[in-house]
Order: sequence, then structure tokens, then C-alpha cells
Amino acid sequence: MSVTDTTIAKSDPDGSLVYRGFPIAEIVKNAGFEETAYLVINGRLPKKPELEAFSAELKRKGTIDSKVIELMRELGSGAVPMDVLRTAVSALGSLDKDEGVGERQTSLEAKMAMLAANCHRVPMGMAPRRPRSDLGFADNLLQMLTPKEASGYEKWVFERVLILYMEHELNASSFAVRVVASTLADPYAAATAGLAALKGPLHGGANEEAMRTLLELGEPEKAGAYVEKSLAEGRKVIGFGHRIYKEFDPRARFCKEYLQEMLKKRGGDDNLYRLCDAVERKMWERKGIPPNLDFYAAPIFYLLGIEIPLYTPIFAASRVFGWMAHYNEQVVENKLIRPDATYVGPRNLKYTPLEKR
Amino acid sequence: MSVTDTTIAKSDPDGSLVYRGFPIAEIVKNAGFEETAYLVINGRLPKKPELEAFSAELKRKGTIDSKVIELMRELGSGAVPMDVLRTAVSALGSLDKDEGVGERQTSLEAKMAMLAANCHRVPMGMAPRRPRSDLGFADNLLQMLTPKEASGYEKWVFERVLILYMEHELNASSFAVRVVASTLADPYAAATAGLAALKGPLHGGANEEAMRTLLELGEPEKAGAYVEKSLAEGRKVIGFGHRIYKEFDPRARFCKEYLQEMLKKRGGDDNLYRLCDAVERKMWERKGIPPNLDFYAAPIFYLLGIEIPLYTPIFAASRVFGWMAHYNEQVVENKLIRPDATYVGPRNLKYTPLEKR
Repeated sequence: MSVTDTTIAKSDPDGSLVYRGFPIAEIVKNAGFEETAYLVINGRLPKKPELEAFSAELKRKGTIDSKVIELMRELGSGAVPMDVLRTAVSALGSLDKDEGVGERQTSLEAKMAMLAANCHRVPMGMAPRRPRSDLGFADNLLQMLTPKEASGYEKWVFERVLILYMEHELNASSFAVRVVASTLADPYAAATAGLAALKGPLHGGANEEAMRTLLELGEPEKAGAYVEKSLAEGRKVIGFGHRIYKEFDPRARFCKEYLQEMLKKRGGDDNLYRLCDAVERKMWERKGIPPNLDFYAAPIFYLLGIEIPLYTPIFAASRVFGWMAHYNEQVVENKLIRPDATYVGPRNLKYTPLEKR
Repeated sequence: MSVTDTTIAKSDPDGSLVYRGFPIAEIVKNAGFEETAYLVINGRLPKKPELEAFSAELKRKGTIDSKVIELMRELGSGAVPMDVLRTAVSALGSLDKDEGVGERQTSLEAKMAMLAANCHRVPMGMAPRRPRSDLGFADNLLQMLTPKEASGYEKWVFERVLILYMEHELNASSFAVRVVASTLADPYAAATAGLAALKGPLHGGANEEAMRTLLELGEPEKAGAYVEKSLAEGRKVIGFGHRIYKEFDPRARFCKEYLQEMLKKRGGDDNLYRLCDAVERKMWERKGIPPNLDFYAAPIFYLLGIEIPLYTPIFAASRVFGWMAHYNEQVVENKLIRPDATYVGPRNLKYTPLEKR
């Protein structure tokens, strides 16, 4: 059931994905994060001065002020990072003094890296990590997420994973963003709804759960029994299956390659790769279901030394660019999104006084 | 286009509205706020002990702690009340220590009165208003919203208006709640998305704008020229028209009666009623469009001495009960809400290096 026309992105069951007309392979092999973000938002690749201006703007607006840090801290050490991130973005809707929809969108996008990197550590009482003015969005997010300096290849991979997470047409969070945008509420309100949806285990939460499962298994040899047991017990194997992709998720394929290459460059064992591959093969053999992006992004984040509760916030930090593209597309020829429901309850009931029930 | 079955509520173009099978007239003439809330959430009218237990629970959980007050205050005096309310509810998703979905829902519902009553004054640096343990939800909300003691009739009317705002099947905010619920995110996340949607001027914001217009007009004699001018300039007349109701909005009819009766009981002039009536008649004559709930709820709130920026938060404080009914209905037989979009953009574009653009 199609609810709108779009020119932002398209995924197909056969495993193709386009961003603004470009096959995902063209983008992920050639473009940088800011370049892709510009494309997703504006509908075309930027010229050099446009890219420089956009990158500079993201840097300039990328620091969040102490009021937001304080507010995150007050949520306390038990806080779920996605709750913290959602609350901080909602608060920024009040605190951000930028004017105009475009300005506010860029401000929100810019701040998402610092917000995502701090939504776990700050509530635990740790000092905030801050962006460096010499780094782009992806490198900055990575350096704030993990204290150890990644290799050049690993930085490149992290940027690729962010690009792959940026946009995926009408997933639940982007649709929530469009529902809110259709009331003509502002971009922060819309992004808050996107973050609310992304928290759900059926949506963004999958990459964290996938990693916990992989760690629990540990060895490739355990993959087969795990899949069999899950299927026998009727449990979902996290990281598999997608509403759209039936043959393969192109984003997962890229990440699988990156994972293998990362381990190869590091030397040592490649257990983690072989484990993922074994689960994938078994799932394909038994159910014909391919892995999705979350399944192969998770071990990459893990190897980079990023804490598991930050995987969904990272997803959010990139997806917000896609959300803003949806916001803009929605409001241009806006129609309030207010679908019908089929009422299947009774009618004409009579009120009975309290004493007679 | 129907996206789901529902047994919660149904509105029809001819002006009928049912809550859980009861025509709205049965409810609004007979039931109290808590009784209606129980009905909307549980699908049937409560027996006496059930109603007492539910009412007691709402009282017991209705106070928000100082951390949330502090957080609201930090947003500062320029903050839009709906931004404050959304941020506070989002934060409560972290701070509320209740366990279990049902417990957390009741906690959220209970706290909405104090949150709504304070989302404007606390950021301005004023002391929070608190619920009284001897009052029910509606009376408590009213006494926190306005310092002057309302008459018995006016308290009854305020409770009626809240009942009329409680539920209205798949409006944009309830649909946003269901989209988020379908990811299996928690009730606070879902309510945050509902609040994000309700902020929009095409949704909850209408009652505030309706009142500002009525105040600007002032005299019944100005109604005709105002409507003509708005139509000539192609501007929307706020408070008129509804996606469902084409003949009349039954909720507006009740509120119109209440407004007339309130003014009559007060003595003095009935200009405000005659102004509303004149705008209504002119709109019907010229466009055949009836007033909606917001148009007649606004002057009632105004007469009660409630500040205009609180009208949408009041709407939210009641609608949250409907949202939670939708949350529960969604998750029982859940299917992720992820509609299709029709891609109408280009395909197979080739990446051009930056220098060659």
C-alpha cells in the first residue's frame, strides 16, 4: 500500500537500493558522508563550494551547550541512551536559537554526532566528549565514541556504515517523522518522533541485540545449533529478515566485506567473521532469509571498540539526515496524514448507572 | 484508506461519534472523566470498585518529582509549552521507576495533569502548581490551571470538554503513537511522538489560534467581514472543517451549548457566544463548513481564565488516555507500520567526481 510519492530513496525486494537515483554501490564506493548527506537532502550531488559550505556549517553548529549536557546528566546512570537522545533532541527544539526551518535542520543534524556520542556516558556522570574542528562528521563521531585511534581503513569503513544507515525510504521512524511533519510541527518535533520509533526493538534496537547474540555464541561452531534452537522455539533470529529485501540486503553485503577486510588487516583470528557467515548460511539454508544491515554493522562497531548501547544512537545520528529529507518532501505539498480505521466494535450501547453494573 | 481495525472509537461524516460503542451523547451526559477514561482504555464501563481503584491510582501517581520540574525550568521563559510538555514526558520515560507497561501507562496518564498545568509557568520561573488529594483529574487540572475557583457548573463543563477531547480514532497524533508502538517501543516513547504531532498547527494547535482570532474580532458584528476577507485571501478559517465531519462535529455542538449556558449563568453580555455563532453561520452560509471542537472549546477555556498557550497542553492531558488505548490495541496483534512509497525519481545515475560537477 503506497501512501506517498517520493524521490528520496527506493529499496526493492531484489536487493537494489538507490539514494536520489544513485545505486547505493555508486555512493558507498565513491562519496563521503557530507557529500551523501547533501545528496539525500537536496536531491543532487553538491558542487565543491556547496560541499565546503555544508561541511563547514555542520562543524560550526556541531557543539551542544552546557544546558543540554546538564539535562542529559540529570537523567541519571540508569537511563537508556535512546531515551536520553530523544529527550535531548526534544529539549533542543526549545533551546536552539537558530531561525528558519533550514537553519534549524542543519543545526539538529550537526549536533546529532555529539548527542549520540554522549547520550550514554554523560548520564553516567562522565565528562562529555567534544567534536574536533579539524574532522568531518564521521571521523568526529568515531573519535567521540571511542578513545582509541582507529586506522585509516577503519575510519573509512565507519563512514561507509554511516552512509548505509542514512536513508531507507518509509521505515517506521521516517514515517513517524512524516506523520508529525504533516501537522506542520517543526523539524525537532518530527525528529523526536523519529527517535521514539527508532528505539523500538523491531526497528533500530536490532543492531544492539544482534551483537549481544553474537557475543553469547562466540564460536562459529555454535551457529548451527543456535539457529536450529531459535527456529524450534519459534524465536526471531535478530538481524535477519527485512520487510523489503527478500533476496539480500545490499547494505549487509557491503558490511560483510568490510568486516572480513578489517579482520584481515588486523591479523589474528577471524572468528567473528566466520561466526556471522555461519549464522547467515544456516539461516539461508533453513529459511531462505538473508541478513540485514544491523547484523553486519554490529560486529564492525564492536571491533571499533564502541559500546553496544551506542549502536542505535549511531544509527540515529546518520538517519536524521534522511529524516530531514522526508520532512522537507512532506511539507512541500503537504496533506495531513490521517488514515482511516475500520471500526469493528459495537454501536448504540446505553449508559448504565454505576450502581447497576 | 483503512490501515487497521479498531474498537476504540468511530466518527462518521454525519456527525456521529462513539467511544467503545457508546454514542458520545450517552457518555458526555452521564459519565465522569475517570469513568470515561476507564471505558476508553479497557473497552467497558468500570464497576464501582474498579472505578475507585483507577481513580485512586491516578491520584497516587499524579505528582511529578522535582527533577522533572527542574528540567522544565531549564528550558527557559521563551519555551513553547508543547515543547516543554513533550520534553518532560520524554524525560519521564527515563525517570519513571514504575515497572510493567500498564503501570507505566497509568503513571504517565496521572502525571499529565500536573505536567500540562506547569509546562508554561515553570519555564517562566514561577512556582509549580500541585494536585490536591481530594480532587479528581478534571477538577485538579482546572485548579492548577487557574487560581480562581470555578463554579460547580463550570467545573462540570470543563470535565465535559476534557471528555470530548479524550479520543478521536486515527487522528495524526494517535496514528503517530501507533507507528511508534508498532516498533514495540515503550508507552512514553509513543506518547512523546503523539505530543510531537499534537504540536502542529494543523492538529492540536488549532484551539489556541481560534481563540486569538476570536479576541482579535471582539464583536459579533465583525464576523461577516472577517469570514469574507479570509475567504477572499484564500486563508483558512481556524476552527472550521474536519477530515471526517462534513455536516457537524458533535463535540462542537455540546461545547456551543455549554458556552451559551456559562454566559447565561454568569449574567452580563453574551458577546463571545454571539460572535462564535455569527462566524459559524457565515461559514455555513458561504462554504457549508461546520465548526470543529477547537472552535467552541477555546472560548470555554478562555472564560475559565486559562491562558491561551495552555489550550493544546490541556488537549494533550486528556488525549493521552486515548493514545494509551491505541498503544494497547496496536501491540496486541502487532505488525510493524511500514507503508510503501512510490518512487518517482531517477534511477541508475552515475557518480561524477567532485571536480567535474
